[in-house]
Amino acid sequence: MASTVRSHAGSSLREFELINTLRRRHGRASASTVRGIGDDAAVTAPRAGRHLALTTDLLAEGIHFDLATASIEDVGYKAAVANLSDVAAMGARPEHLLVALAIPASCTRSRILRLYKGLMAACRPYRVSLIGGDTSASASGLFVSLTVTGSVPAGRALLRSGARVGDLIYVTGTLGDSLGGLRLLSRRDRKPAPGLAPAARRYLIARHRRPAAHCRLGQLLSRHRLATAAIDLSDGLSGDLRHICEQSQVGAEINAGALPISSALRAYAAATRTDPSTLALQGGEDYELLFTVPPSQSRRLARVAARPGLRLTCIGVIRPKRKGIRLRDEAGALRRLPLTSYVHFHKVSD
Amino acid sequence: MASTVRSHAGSSLREFELINTLRRRHGRASASTVRGIGDDAAVTAPRAGRHLALTTDLLAEGIHFDLATASIEDVGYKAAVANLSDVAAMGARPEHLLVALAIPASCTRSRILRLYKGLMAACRPYRVSLIGGDTSASASGLFVSLTVTGSVPAGRALLRSGARVGDLIYVTGTLGDSLGGLRLLSRRDRKPAPGLAPAARRYLIARHRRPAAHCRLGQLLSRHRLATAAIDLSDGLSGDLRHICEQSQVGAEINAGALPISSALRAYAAATRTDPSTLALQGGEDYELLFTVPPSQSRRLARVAARPGLRLTCIGVIRPKRKGIRLRDEAGALRRLPLTSYVHFHKVSD
Repeated sequence: MASTVRSHAGSSLREFELINTLRRRHGRASASTVRGIGDDAAVTAPRAGRHLALTTDLLAEGIHFDLATASIEDVGYKAAVANLSDVAAMGARPEHLLVALAIPASCTRSRILRLYKGLMAACRPYRVSLIGGDTSASASGLFVSLTVTGSVPAGRALLRSGARVGDLIYVTGTLGDSLGGLRLLSRRDRKPAPGLAPAARRYLIARHRRPAAHCRLGQLLSRHRLATAAIDLSDGLSGDLRHICEQSQVGAEINAGALPISSALRAYAAATRTDPSTLALQGGEDYELLFTVPPSQSRRLARVAARPGLRLTCIGVIRPKRKGIRLRDEAGALRRLPLTSYVHFHKVSD
Repeated sequence: MASTVRSHAGSSLREFELINTLRRRHGRASASTVRGIGDDAAVTAPRAGRHLALTTDLLAEGIHFDLATASIEDVGYKAAVANLSDVAAMGARPEHLLVALAIPASCTRSRILRLYKGLMAACRPYRVSLIGGDTSASASGLFVSLTVTGSVPAGRALLRSGARVGDLIYVTGTLGDSLGGLRLLSRRDRKPAPGLAPAARRYLIARHRRPAAHCRLGQLLSRHRLATAAIDLSDGLSGDLRHICEQSQVGAEINAGALPISSALRAYAAATRTDPSTLALQGGEDYELLFTVPPSQSRRLARVAARPGLRLTCIGVIRPKRKGIRLRDEAGALRRLPLTSYVHFHKVSD
């Protein structure tokens, strides 16, 4: 595929054929696509009165994914969700996708087509158009770099910097499920969690493999001016909340008892004797949205965002910067929220 | 750096510090930047009446560059030029840059800053703003994925598909210099070309290491409606002309005697007993523009594009599709133009 058709190491004809296949399968143009796959660059027609959101992510084999625990389709799906979720966190509507791949010699054409199948499965609900990219060889490992654009009414993008003292902190969905699923997929956990019901196991693994981006909610928050700041939870609550606090120059207090935790993750925590709150705070790749809402808007939020299947939970409140970022435990004691760093997969050899 | 700040394998704090350094050094916002580095996504304000050009390229260590023959600054510079050149070939003005990197553990912070220095050196003449990206670890090798956006008046993008029978085929600059420079840098050629003057050697190597993108000419061609089709020469004339012909449903006839060849490349060809026309036809990474112009516009082209240092050469003419893509040699004989595939570097171990 490609906006630019590259020819590396003698593979130009093969690549050209791949590009044509991708154009046929996935190159359906949207109204705003002037020129899609197949020129030096793609051309789009931005709509008047709207700003453009642009995000790019690079996923590296051996760092972000391991083909021993993820299918190539899942890799594509999650790569798309990571970018769609960034667009969602800006309150923008995702529109266009560019895909740059570096492909090792061992990777077959059919695997690449399955990667695209996963990518486009994640994009389809939002009618995101594949408009270009670049395909090249890799001397080692698969690299997937995506750029997703979206649009948002001018001046309405949800920034990380708008949280104010007193704002309520909300999250969508449940937290930590993806980490639970990841642990179940890693060898480290193949034997433990023996008492875990198969349905809970399947649920957590599905949450890890096929997370959802909250693009519609992001747009609602922007359109109704409900959120003062927003971020998506890709690296875990403790790290991502910190970005909001740093950029908004505020502190925060999180209520451990309020953290939304699925019954499947509770069962996993019980079976593995881990603390579910710790999983919820540390787990990354949930792609839930975290956003701040003035207390005066909380009833409007409940009304506007009421949708089957969408869970919103108030987990804390924005505090002055000098208070730092703290966690109130279930006994009522306050302590600093530790910064943990999410590792995207556990090597099978662990 | 990043629109998204990622934290992989415990490196979140170090990365955050790198992002802040990049934001200080390179994050100067342009008028159209609403939100640059440091949020979930960058936000820009497209101007009314203009379309957006978007291109992405992924450069892989061991495939597109070899740190034995290119400095890390040159890698950054050329990565930017490859994308700027794609934008130029659309007739668009480059505006914004996103950078996604996968960095091996062996790569120091200072090397990454030098990579950015090279990137931004190529962008500076066009006031392209760095607005976001993603930085992650790589289990093997350095990967540089860029996305560059540009803007062009609505309906004025130069496509590959507009060439018409009878149009004249023009190229900028001279062809094959980058390939000459690459061969001089590769071990294969360290001993040959012994009689080549140092100035010619330096010229060819500089053309390989620091090619230029023709962004201003691209915009002129679009603004004055001079070109019917355009492409940048990244993979070599023989392959890139083929893209124009395929998408425009035409053939072409190239005049070998007209190919613009620098005196340095002629000297190199003489010293290595190679055919300079073959180097000009096969060489990639010159980043010259190839474009087609109706004969009625050729005098206007000469007037509009007259600029010190800009060389324009008519190298052939668009023919009907059934004629194929042919080369007229200096004796006047016509033969099929062979499709050659440019390999981006010669391994030092060759």
